[in-house]
Amino acid sequence: MKNFQWPVRVYYEDTDAGGVVYYANYLKFYERARTERLRALGFEQDRLRRDTGLVFAVRSVQVDYLRPALFNDELLVSAEVRNLKRASVEFNQEITRCRFDSEPELLSRAVVRIVSLDIETFTPITIPDAIRERMNDDC
Amino acid sequence: MKNFQWPVRVYYEDTDAGGVVYYANYLKFYERARTERLRALGFEQDRLRRDTGLVFAVRSVQVDYLRPALFNDELLVSAEVRNLKRASVEFNQEITRCRFDSEPELLSRAVVRIVSLDIETFTPITIPDAIRERMNDDC
Amino acid sequence: MKNFQWPVRVYYEDTDAGGVVYYANYLKFYERARTERLRALGFEQDRLRRDTGLVFAVRSVQVDYLRPALFNDELLVSAEVRNLKRASVEFNQEITRCRFDSEPELLSRAVVRIVSLDIETFTPITIPDAIRERMNDDC
Amino acid sequence: MKNFQWPVRVYYEDTDAGGVVYYANYLKFYERARTERLRALGFEQDRLRRDTGLVFAVRSVQVDYLRPALFNDELLVSAEVRNLKRASVEFNQEITRCRFDSEPELLSRAVVRIVSLDIETFTPITIPDAIRERMNDDC
Repeated sequence: MKNFQWPVRVYYEDTDAGGVVYYANYLKFYERARTERLRALGFEQDRLRRDTGLVFAVRSVQVDYLRPALFNDELLVSAEVRNLKRASVEFNQEITRCRFDSEPELLSRAVVRIVSLDIETFTPITIPDAIRERMNDDC
Repeated sequence: MKNFQWPVRVYYEDTDAGGVVYYANYLKFYERARTERLRALGFEQDRLRRDTGLVFAVRSVQVDYLRPALFNDELLVSAEVRNLKRASVEFNQEITRCRFDSEPELLSRAVVRIVSLDIETFTPITIPDAIRERMNDDC
Repeated sequence: MKNFQWPVRVYYEDTDAGGVVYYANYLKFYERARTERLRALGFEQDRLRRDTGLVFAVRSVQVDYLRPALFNDELLVSAEVRNLKRASVEFNQEITRCRFDSEPELLSRAVVRIVSLDIETFTPITIPDAIRERMNDDC
Repeated sequence: MKNFQWPVRVYYEDTDAGGVVYYANYLKFYERARTERLRALGFEQDRLRRDTGLVFAVRSVQVDYLRPALFNDELLVSAEVRNLKRASVEFNQEITRCRFDSEPELLSRAVVRIVSLDIETFTPITIPDAIRERMNDDC
């Protein structure tokens, strides 16, 4: 499950009057890929929340915008697990544009730090072993 | 409190690659005006929810798009109460563009039907008398 | 190509603090399905715009919200062509929730009227015959 | 014009099913404050674009999320100019929550690097002297 990539199509909703994808919307694409990464590892966040009171929250993001994504582009978004700790984990992520007639182009890179929180108290709680182990295999 | 209008500035976040405000985002502007209309009547939706378990949900919208709103435009959004019933209310709304050197232009019109729901069961509940009375003065 | 349906997964970006999909975001889902419907008919909107100066703009929407869509839901969005005219077309659309262990549930219905505009003048222009014909087969 | 702050009210559109402001939407708040900062310095981005072919694009962001913003919160967003260069500038930004009955709380911090681009070629161009000078006074 290395090299996990999630496809994203760019619609009008994602773009702005500059003719490119609006800078905040890359964070949506990055999160879709993380959500699908967790799903591929066997975890549904709504069930996690209901069963264990755990939610994942973003603590920090660092995003580089290298080339603009455009309306109708087909993108691939990666989500690689890094720095797995007791109550936090980092994802290294990239957005690449795919065109059938040319090389893939790297459009953006991000490092996203996630913490594991108790839904009631919003304080950090330990990531359950079952999740940690599968994430670990991914590092 | 007739003729309530709420000012909205158009930012890049609101526009799309067509160079105009994205059609779904007019619904955000319409909701900001309804929220501020309720606040002007003396009601805070977070307190309502906490104290009485009541949330307002949209049951239907009918929106006409007459002229496009553009980046940097200054808009005025109205929110007039209509058809107040036991567990629902309609808002008649308009979005107008203001330019200091010309007449106001009507850009969009909407009718939005809101229902009053119990936050736990998602079933309709009676709008509290205190709210109903102040809304009634507004009709 | 009757019964065209486009799958949409609900992510956190689509929801609001009421715990359900935010009412404006249904319009994003509806538009994704229309875009994919046109693509399935053989038309790419960026190429249309570049080659013929034509853009499709929404003139009106009528949306009913019947049941709320939730985080992680898998939805199907339909986009049926109706009332094809010289410079406008209507889409009848529905959003249905699919769960492997139960019947599909209808969550929302919409009628969306689209006009065909000249990108420079924002005035109506005739929908090209090639598009009209394939849409016609769809009615 | 030190200590520039722009007020932002949190609406349902900004929140997610976690009950807090969605992490991508902080970037919208940060951009509103930068746009208003430029306006306060005397520059309208639509006019800049029309008259000089210049657009500002985000090259990188670094955001820390310290405490969640909630529905109905009143926020203040700062936008301080830093590291003004020939074709780029950095903004140091903060989001603070204001409550009339308590101390302001710092919710988020960001460093946003902006580049000045030619709208046609998307290549860097020198920030005009008039803008540079007024930004300089701000550093």
